[in-house]
Amino acid sequence: MRRRNLSRVLREVAAAGTVSRAGVAARIGLTRAGVAPLVEELLRAGLLVETGRAAGGGRGRPGSGLTASDRGPAGLGAEIGVGHLAVCAVDLRGRVRARVAVAAANRHSAPGPVLRRLSALLAEVTSRMAAEGLRPAGLTVAVPGLVARGSATVVHAPNLGWRQTDLASGLAGTPVPLTVDNEAHLGALAELRLGGGTDGPAPPADFVHVSADAGIGAAVVVDGQLLRGARGFAGELGHVPVYPDGRPCDCGGRGCLEQYAGERAVLRAGGIAPDAAAHAGPGARIALLARRAADGDTTATGALREAGTALGIALAGAVNLLDPRAVVLGGALAGLAPWILPSLERELAVRTAVAPAAARPGGCVVTVSRLGAEGPLLGAAHSALSAVLDDPAGTSTPAHSPQS
Amino acid sequence: MRRRNLSRVLREVAAAGTVSRAGVAARIGLTRAGVAPLVEELLRAGLLVETGRAAGGGRGRPGSGLTASDRGPAGLGAEIGVGHLAVCAVDLRGRVRARVAVAAANRHSAPGPVLRRLSALLAEVTSRMAAEGLRPAGLTVAVPGLVARGSATVVHAPNLGWRQTDLASGLAGTPVPLTVDNEAHLGALAELRLGGGTDGPAPPADFVHVSADAGIGAAVVVDGQLLRGARGFAGELGHVPVYPDGRPCDCGGRGCLEQYAGERAVLRAGGIAPDAAAHAGPGARIALLARRAADGDTTATGALREAGTALGIALAGAVNLLDPRAVVLGGALAGLAPWILPSLERELAVRTAVAPAAARPGGCVVTVSRLGAEGPLLGAAHSALSAVLDDPAGTSTPAHSPQS
Repeated sequence: MRRRNLSRVLREVAAAGTVSRAGVAARIGLTRAGVAPLVEELLRAGLLVETGRAAGGGRGRPGSGLTASDRGPAGLGAEIGVGHLAVCAVDLRGRVRARVAVAAANRHSAPGPVLRRLSALLAEVTSRMAAEGLRPAGLTVAVPGLVARGSATVVHAPNLGWRQTDLASGLAGTPVPLTVDNEAHLGALAELRLGGGTDGPAPPADFVHVSADAGIGAAVVVDGQLLRGARGFAGELGHVPVYPDGRPCDCGGRGCLEQYAGERAVLRAGGIAPDAAAHAGPGARIALLARRAADGDTTATGALREAGTALGIALAGAVNLLDPRAVVLGGALAGLAPWILPSLERELAVRTAVAPAAARPGGCVVTVSRLGAEGPLLGAAHSALSAVLDDPAGTSTPAHSPQS
Repeated sequence: MRRRNLSRVLREVAAAGTVSRAGVAARIGLTRAGVAPLVEELLRAGLLVETGRAAGGGRGRPGSGLTASDRGPAGLGAEIGVGHLAVCAVDLRGRVRARVAVAAANRHSAPGPVLRRLSALLAEVTSRMAAEGLRPAGLTVAVPGLVARGSATVVHAPNLGWRQTDLASGLAGTPVPLTVDNEAHLGALAELRLGGGTDGPAPPADFVHVSADAGIGAAVVVDGQLLRGARGFAGELGHVPVYPDGRPCDCGGRGCLEQYAGERAVLRAGGIAPDAAAHAGPGARIALLARRAADGDTTATGALREAGTALGIALAGAVNLLDPRAVVLGGALAGLAPWILPSLERELAVRTAVAPAAARPGGCVVTVSRLGAEGPLLGAAHSALSAVLDDPAGTSTPAHSPQS
């Protein structure tokens, strides 16, 4: 119970920015006397710090305001993309404190060299963190593939060409607990936590999050909880059949969504050569496609219209089955939304009883993630940080603890 | 807390059949002294009765065994099918104590006459119940359409032709609380509660339940909980696009599953005339199709093979998205399974990363419901009974309480 209350206090202060002891007590429904020892413990552990001012900007006695520490534990997120590697660190205040990203030809790669390169990026970020008084509390790695529930094993990442790949050994040099998760799942967690922004509406608790890197992934959130599936493999929207007798897919099926709306399919249909914008960094070819579409290039707009149609057909199935409050387009799809949305929404309107909202009040809305391609990486860092927020006492001892 | 413990004791005894006070105490983790007053209250309320023998068949002192009463409250379930009406009553022991079913031409019907006919069937069943000392504790009505979450309003039942139809007024003569739910949802609840049977394995907690009456409905169960969707409309598998440029559907879409695997589509493709087996009761035409298929009629087997292919394509999408432990075929599909399953499983095997189990150990299995077309009706009666099991003290006063 004490552990749970410590967690509630820390989460409340982290969410509030700056807040008084009385404010915390009121928000979590405890007395000031009940909150005081919890706050003291979090202050001693260095997870909270006192400010001279309470929330609202009024001047109180020194120490009347509480804020989460901008030193101490931070969540470390990493992303293994098909075309890039990225690492970032997020502090208890939810701010990104360090970030590196590099282009990387990871398609059909050997895991060893990829993980060695990622380890070097992790070392670079942790060194920057140390200089600012931050220590990693945990590492979550986002991968574009199926991850066995509760394990560090990538069961199958078709675009990387990895099968039954255990990341724990390749990342053994990282001195913090390691979690591996599907990139679309982490993108959805980021959306759930950050999607509403400070000035926008709160993100809905029931949504289907669709993202694209090289493949297409999705995540289903129900009542604020990620639906992981019996084995952890839920969300494989990329292999939902769209045109059952259509193009063969690497998965062994035919007419999968990925063959019509995946990055490779869209770039090819949009006339972007495989070597276009080479070495221009992650996302450069998609950015080039978006520029051409914005310039009115009909090959580009036609390719994106067809991708939207395919996405709309697959999402019509998902909406009929799940009745979500919203469909959120994230990842590379966010930047392409202006040219994808019209045909996508047309299919949804015709093929579902409950969408879109414009056609039928109360129906499912289609929104575009503000996080875009950053979602999975941010979701990974926040996911790593949640161990501290869930159990402040268990993780507040200065690192580096041995890997679990 | 006391209410919750009363519920736990009643549920435990109902599930066990006959059990001693010590047995109940052990199963729910209370002391015998803690259980005794709860048992006394349930005995006084007439929800439990004492038997001369404890569980296991040994002779104890009189009163040492407890069993749920076969008198007192019972759940009343009703089903409005496109071709039939049915009502049944299930007692606290889970036994069906009364059941009536009649053929009815409900397609594109006016709600008033249908509900008057259903009211007459309800009166017939409650009169039979009264003769056996049973009183209705609640009524749940299964309908083949979308029901607004937590309401008695059928938002849209395309095969009945009903829109925004409030069943509360049409069934106002029923002196018990009324609940209206989608038939596929109730079929899944029945599967969850009864599907494992006494000798079979326990039903999995994560499955997609597919049933067919005139349309095709489905229900998604995750961790033992029905996924209802934001508005209560989840499970519309019948309108998942299978062949996006295919046959037009009543819903306004094209190529929906229902146009290839719904009862009308299958009967037409199977060469069963619309007036075949007229007046032979609910399910007679489907039974005729099954007999012809069993006799090797290639028109019948071909129609069922094509239906299986369409089901397999739609379910491949669902399995990719949800990663369930199993797909359960219920309703009319259960009786047709021998001719549907081969093509259905072939599509699943090719189009999903995780199914079927036969091809990939640990994958999704396809099973056939033992409840068949009875599932929704049984699910409705059990759902109505759950109000008593959840709150024995609140519902144990002899009826008839005014309708809520």
